[in-house]
Amino acid sequence: MPTSSYAELCSLKREAATLASVAHLLGWDQETYMPSGGTAGRAEMSAAMAGLIHERETSKRLGELIAACASDKAVQTDDAAAANVREMRRDYDRATKLPKDLVTELANVGARSQDAWKDARKKSDFKAFQPWLEKMVALTRKKAECYGVPAGGELYDALLDEYEPDARAAEIEAVFNPLRDRLSGLVAELLDNGTPPDTASRKVHVPEAAQHAFGLKVIEQMGFDLTRGRLDTTTHPFCEGLAPGDTRLTTRYDENYFMAALYGIMHEAGHGLYEQGLPKQDAAGEPSSIYGTPLSEARSLGIHESQSRGWENFVGRGRAFWDWAKPVADGFFGSAFAKFSPDQVYRASNLVERSFIRVEADEATYNLHVMLRFGIERAMISGDLAIKDVPGEWNERFERMLGVKVPDDAQGCLQDVHWSFGLIGYFPTYTLGNLYAAQFFEAIREEAPDLDARIAKGDMSPVLDWTRKHIHSLGRRFTAAEICERATGKPLGPDPLMRHLEGKLRPIYGV
Amino acid sequence: MPTSSYAELCSLKREAATLASVAHLLGWDQETYMPSGGTAGRAEMSAAMAGLIHERETSKRLGELIAACASDKAVQTDDAAAANVREMRRDYDRATKLPKDLVTELANVGARSQDAWKDARKKSDFKAFQPWLEKMVALTRKKAECYGVPAGGELYDALLDEYEPDARAAEIEAVFNPLRDRLSGLVAELLDNGTPPDTASRKVHVPEAAQHAFGLKVIEQMGFDLTRGRLDTTTHPFCEGLAPGDTRLTTRYDENYFMAALYGIMHEAGHGLYEQGLPKQDAAGEPSSIYGTPLSEARSLGIHESQSRGWENFVGRGRAFWDWAKPVADGFFGSAFAKFSPDQVYRASNLVERSFIRVEADEATYNLHVMLRFGIERAMISGDLAIKDVPGEWNERFERMLGVKVPDDAQGCLQDVHWSFGLIGYFPTYTLGNLYAAQFFEAIREEAPDLDARIAKGDMSPVLDWTRKHIHSLGRRFTAAEICERATGKPLGPDPLMRHLEGKLRPIYGV
Repeated sequence: MPTSSYAELCSLKREAATLASVAHLLGWDQETYMPSGGTAGRAEMSAAMAGLIHERETSKRLGELIAACASDKAVQTDDAAAANVREMRRDYDRATKLPKDLVTELANVGARSQDAWKDARKKSDFKAFQPWLEKMVALTRKKAECYGVPAGGELYDALLDEYEPDARAAEIEAVFNPLRDRLSGLVAELLDNGTPPDTASRKVHVPEAAQHAFGLKVIEQMGFDLTRGRLDTTTHPFCEGLAPGDTRLTTRYDENYFMAALYGIMHEAGHGLYEQGLPKQDAAGEPSSIYGTPLSEARSLGIHESQSRGWENFVGRGRAFWDWAKPVADGFFGSAFAKFSPDQVYRASNLVERSFIRVEADEATYNLHVMLRFGIERAMISGDLAIKDVPGEWNERFERMLGVKVPDDAQGCLQDVHWSFGLIGYFPTYTLGNLYAAQFFEAIREEAPDLDARIAKGDMSPVLDWTRKHIHSLGRRFTAAEICERATGKPLGPDPLMRHLEGKLRPIYGV
Repeated sequence: MPTSSYAELCSLKREAATLASVAHLLGWDQETYMPSGGTAGRAEMSAAMAGLIHERETSKRLGELIAACASDKAVQTDDAAAANVREMRRDYDRATKLPKDLVTELANVGARSQDAWKDARKKSDFKAFQPWLEKMVALTRKKAECYGVPAGGELYDALLDEYEPDARAAEIEAVFNPLRDRLSGLVAELLDNGTPPDTASRKVHVPEAAQHAFGLKVIEQMGFDLTRGRLDTTTHPFCEGLAPGDTRLTTRYDENYFMAALYGIMHEAGHGLYEQGLPKQDAAGEPSSIYGTPLSEARSLGIHESQSRGWENFVGRGRAFWDWAKPVADGFFGSAFAKFSPDQVYRASNLVERSFIRVEADEATYNLHVMLRFGIERAMISGDLAIKDVPGEWNERFERMLGVKVPDDAQGCLQDVHWSFGLIGYFPTYTLGNLYAAQFFEAIREEAPDLDARIAKGDMSPVLDWTRKHIHSLGRRFTAAEICERATGKPLGPDPLMRHLEGKLRPIYGV
């Protein structure tokens, strides 16, 4: 198959990806080890790399080669190559559609808006942030217009498409709406009629070093390859698929709440396993022949999140996990923790609470937080919701969903950084990830009915093997919807997630 | 002064320097935190950056601007700008003189030759390495011929010029020869007639964490700004002036020999203070207007080494230092160390030994090791010494200088990595550094006669202030010889170093 155009195309993409890897390292280092005095210099380094990468991603030659390959029969009759070119064209179109002025304006206004947001959140003062949010929504709408409304979609879809290609807000809504009502009902059922688990085991004091050592043990057991990755400490945990054979996780530690780091580490390692499973390297450890092309890249944020949430919630917050993990943790955490049973720790890890902050929310309420944001940002983009009305709308919806009153905007619509710099269309991918994870785990259990027994012994290979085969190895060859259908036989729906949550939480709460 | 050509020239240099900073980070990360699986990918990232930097350093436009500025009266009547252009021309000429084929061949053969050297050293088998060394010397000679023999010099000078601009082998020899005889004499006097100091305090077991904490305390006291730098652990210690406001030191720890890390850290921090003192940042922490140009760069390896050896040996191995450092170290090292007096530790830190390995050598014998290499590599390049005769020549010279027989080539001519990848002309800068350091410290003492009393109280500002003023702030404005003459009133000579060593070691050894 590989015609000379296709080969040149792949080599240009690889060049750009190599520079992108360099940029990733700049970002990783800035979050982990860079001394504060290096900030201004680092900004110049990052800007230089961004410029070089942008040049390559928008080069005329790249466009010509994509066009040539799109009409080249030899390429188009090869399914993998055709998919690769389809995805390259998508990237190229997006990269070339925004005028440079708008990119600059988004970056500049976004940076100042983010500062204003920080300040406004501190003072819980929405009015101070409102003009910035108005500017950012207006600019983001402009951006969406440049991308263009996808066929049969709405303006918001043009934004969503950046994070969850081919997804449509209307389709997401059709899944989210019934889910919201059922989740609200479940939370009310648990918290109004049930008995919460004993949380003493969550509060055991565990030194940072012990948490780190245990975390490493857990991710190794998951299959994360520490010769091709590492774990560091940052203020905001993340996973960076930095380069072929180099995937970096970070976490933060609270010595009085070890579960924050443990589940944070499992979450990031879930992302990390996806990055390690993408075909970026050949058997000899060299960058693979498709490295830098879409076939070696993660499908979407929703699929990525399904990997992290899958390991965090469907493995880590499962009963079987603690059969294996409890004695291992005892070796690191000491006697204060050893007195609890695996079952006690399992139950404590599944505490449900009506809380106001998304990033601290439990598995049941988390998606309600996300759906709230999805509804509001979609209405902001369509123009149905004036920016000045955001706090009122937020508080009303929140109370309707969770039955509690938002005390102030800092704990309400000002809590997340995303909107302040124009990150709109991103939130729904969090819940899509949970939905995909639930559906994937039902399929994994179908293939490995003894999954719990194996996890209880520390054998997590059924999860890794299944995700490697049905997701990781495919890169961006299929759409997210296609991945779901091919792997589970069904389109994405709310039932698996509800079955999972109800099946786990009702017994814990005794309802 | 700044004409538009000069301004454009500086901006092109800044662009290249920014990319070089990115490349530095790639290198630093590879030595510190990169997982081994990332090796192949990292090679591709580094090669990509090297290519981009080389393009910029050899661009036609850069050459035109340098030529324009060299004949621009407005530039040439401004001393700083004229010096800046003079140094840019030097860099440009060197960068453009090597044909691309030779660069590639040097890199490829060098990498394989380094592998062969590793293997040969393990087996102490010079014969196995000989053909590689022959190839590398031939290629390096070709490189020297491309650079061209400097006026009144020899072929070796063309190589030396890369590390110690404007230095000449004949001039170095004129300083080294008398130094060698006096050093050999001193070593014999100390070891044959004197009494070595008690070394018990060197052998106290100190955990790595305590050594690290004490090391940080020491470099802060030296004036190293930890908000603009950091200290990490690597197999081979180094200092990397990574970017404006970002200077990184590394060390390694031996829990049964804390002095290795302590003096290693002081050494690298000496390099680091030079990097932090170069005018790369303005008062607001932004990259300065001359960042990326020679005026913001270190003068030469010899001058760089004078800073590291100065702090390590003239401060750190001085009597006054231990008056301050001993009680501080006690706080970190505990009771086993506390029982020694500052004087005992001072004496122990100045043990002289007839050893075979340069990197483990003490202050007195170190330069003998270096001079041996200088003589041999100079003869290799001139053709006076056939490669097959290197071991014999090495062993004969070694015995003549230090009075002991080299037991095998692993402890002889195979010990250093440098020659295996063509690093020839580099060794003499180590001893130049020691000579400069001695001469600088005599000048510092002249300006601050109470230096010891102040160091004993932890006040090391006379050293930092003097070096900031006479060296760091000047960048490459003057040649190394000019820096020396301007700062000390004399050309470089062997006397200050001999005075320093004799004055310190004779009393310790009671001769």
